[in-house]
Amino acid sequence: MHAPALIALDWGTSSFRAYLLSGEGEILEQISRPQGIITVAPGQFETVFEDAVGHWLAAHQSLPVIASGMVGSRQGWMEVPYAPCPAGTQELTAGLTLLQTAKGRRLWLVPGLRYEDTDGIPDVIRGEEVQLVGAGEGGQMRDGVYVFPGTHSKWAVVEGGRIVWFATFMTGEMFSLLRQHSILGRPMTDGPEDAAAFRKGVEGGLSNSGLLNRLFSVRTYSLFGMMPDSSLSSYLSGLLIGAEIAEARQRLGQRQAISALTVVGGAKLAPRYVQALEHAGLTARAVGEEATVRGLFHIARTAELCVTAG
Amino acid sequence: MHAPALIALDWGTSSFRAYLLSGEGEILEQISRPQGIITVAPGQFETVFEDAVGHWLAAHQSLPVIASGMVGSRQGWMEVPYAPCPAGTQELTAGLTLLQTAKGRRLWLVPGLRYEDTDGIPDVIRGEEVQLVGAGEGGQMRDGVYVFPGTHSKWAVVEGGRIVWFATFMTGEMFSLLRQHSILGRPMTDGPEDAAAFRKGVEGGLSNSGLLNRLFSVRTYSLFGMMPDSSLSSYLSGLLIGAEIAEARQRLGQRQAISALTVVGGAKLAPRYVQALEHAGLTARAVGEEATVRGLFHIARTAELCVTAG
Repeated sequence: MHAPALIALDWGTSSFRAYLLSGEGEILEQISRPQGIITVAPGQFETVFEDAVGHWLAAHQSLPVIASGMVGSRQGWMEVPYAPCPAGTQELTAGLTLLQTAKGRRLWLVPGLRYEDTDGIPDVIRGEEVQLVGAGEGGQMRDGVYVFPGTHSKWAVVEGGRIVWFATFMTGEMFSLLRQHSILGRPMTDGPEDAAAFRKGVEGGLSNSGLLNRLFSVRTYSLFGMMPDSSLSSYLSGLLIGAEIAEARQRLGQRQAISALTVVGGAKLAPRYVQALEHAGLTARAVGEEATVRGLFHIARTAELCVTAG
Repeated sequence: MHAPALIALDWGTSSFRAYLLSGEGEILEQISRPQGIITVAPGQFETVFEDAVGHWLAAHQSLPVIASGMVGSRQGWMEVPYAPCPAGTQELTAGLTLLQTAKGRRLWLVPGLRYEDTDGIPDVIRGEEVQLVGAGEGGQMRDGVYVFPGTHSKWAVVEGGRIVWFATFMTGEMFSLLRQHSILGRPMTDGPEDAAAFRKGVEGGLSNSGLLNRLFSVRTYSLFGMMPDSSLSSYLSGLLIGAEIAEARQRLGQRQAISALTVVGGAKLAPRYVQALEHAGLTARAVGEEATVRGLFHIARTAELCVTAG
């Protein structure tokens, strides 16, 4: 086994993940806890941190720590200003911000990114920029269009190894709201995924006829018995993902054709997005969420935070 | 005072309204209770009804009763099948369905309407069809485009005195969901309406650039201090109403230019919609919700349920 060279933290809204890495970027040990930043009371970040990885730091005293995700947001441990676009590995590295803990530990926080489209409305990402480093090659981002499914889905364009555009879509949150709290969710029963209902939804969403109206079809399909209640959830999911793809396409259309599409996400959502993109006539490859730890390793290496083999 | 000739019930999802009317359609007495159908346990509709208007029926034995709204839905007292479009006063009258109560009272329920657009997705209204009769002249619907703001906003087109098209938009429900349960609602504070923020929202919504993305601007405006927290709610309301207008316009564009626009609604929402329509370059007149009772009177008169002066 190689010697530990780096601790990488992926500390997001709903989960805490820590990795003990070798100088080659191998994962030697990992910890995953449901201690996302929303579960941490103000002033308690250091306690959670020490509790989780204190034993690693005690065993390997001078180990550097790099972290990304919502831990660097206003609701996190310390707010790291958003860096502007375009940004690649170099810009992210330059934006690393040092957090010195009460115990004297040194954590390097990766900045999120801010982007302002022609309409003057700012948009932000925090975490996906690191995944883009990890989804690339040799620590550099790879050109293409990327989709990050989630509560707030992100689409990003990499050109010349740097993120030049991105946009957020509230798809996942909208699904949860409608499923849990709206009139549409009431008749829904749990059932296996219904691929046909999902596809029908995707096609409805892609038609771009307007979500406020189209969503009501979930109700009328149920009302007139045109779809089993156990399929309504698949249909709703399809409608929203289809609408996201239509919106992203429309916005991207202003800058470029969609090619070299990559979906970065977990086993639950990524395949669903790849499927929906296929229904839209687009081919996508999927990359797992482990892109984060690879990205953190490459940024730490570029910053020479640790002795690496690279 | 004229003699009572009719009891008209507007029994919706969240409220119960009863009117004692003369043969001229004058309101002699009225009752309003927060006993919408969602508050009524199955089997208890007659109790609520008798409790509210039993004294009118006792005083004027043979008084006919006409009712509209969700009371005729599957969740209501008795389900009345949806009538097809096109439909005007005559078709609604022909669709009146008799409900004989355990006590032997006779209630006539007005049917809702069902419409199927070219995309094969059914849509429904229940209550607005009666308001269209009331918003017309002499018991006949007046040609034009109508907007009914609400939890589920409805747009309808009347041609040749009959409803030929309508569509539902989940605008009001979406606003409540996002205000109460989403990340967008968190920073919102109560404040007076902010007309400038509302207008900015309407313009964003009208731009039709996609709601899933555009909604996220509520968050980033707050994040970067670009809008006071007390204005975010006005902005969100504008975004959704603007998007509704854009969607309705797109769908209507397939059939006709929008002219003779009428907003039918209460004092809270109707002026907001008239304002938003103005931002969209459209002129609208507003008609109050009392259109319901006028509509019920005209349908009862057409059906000759009561002795009227008309």
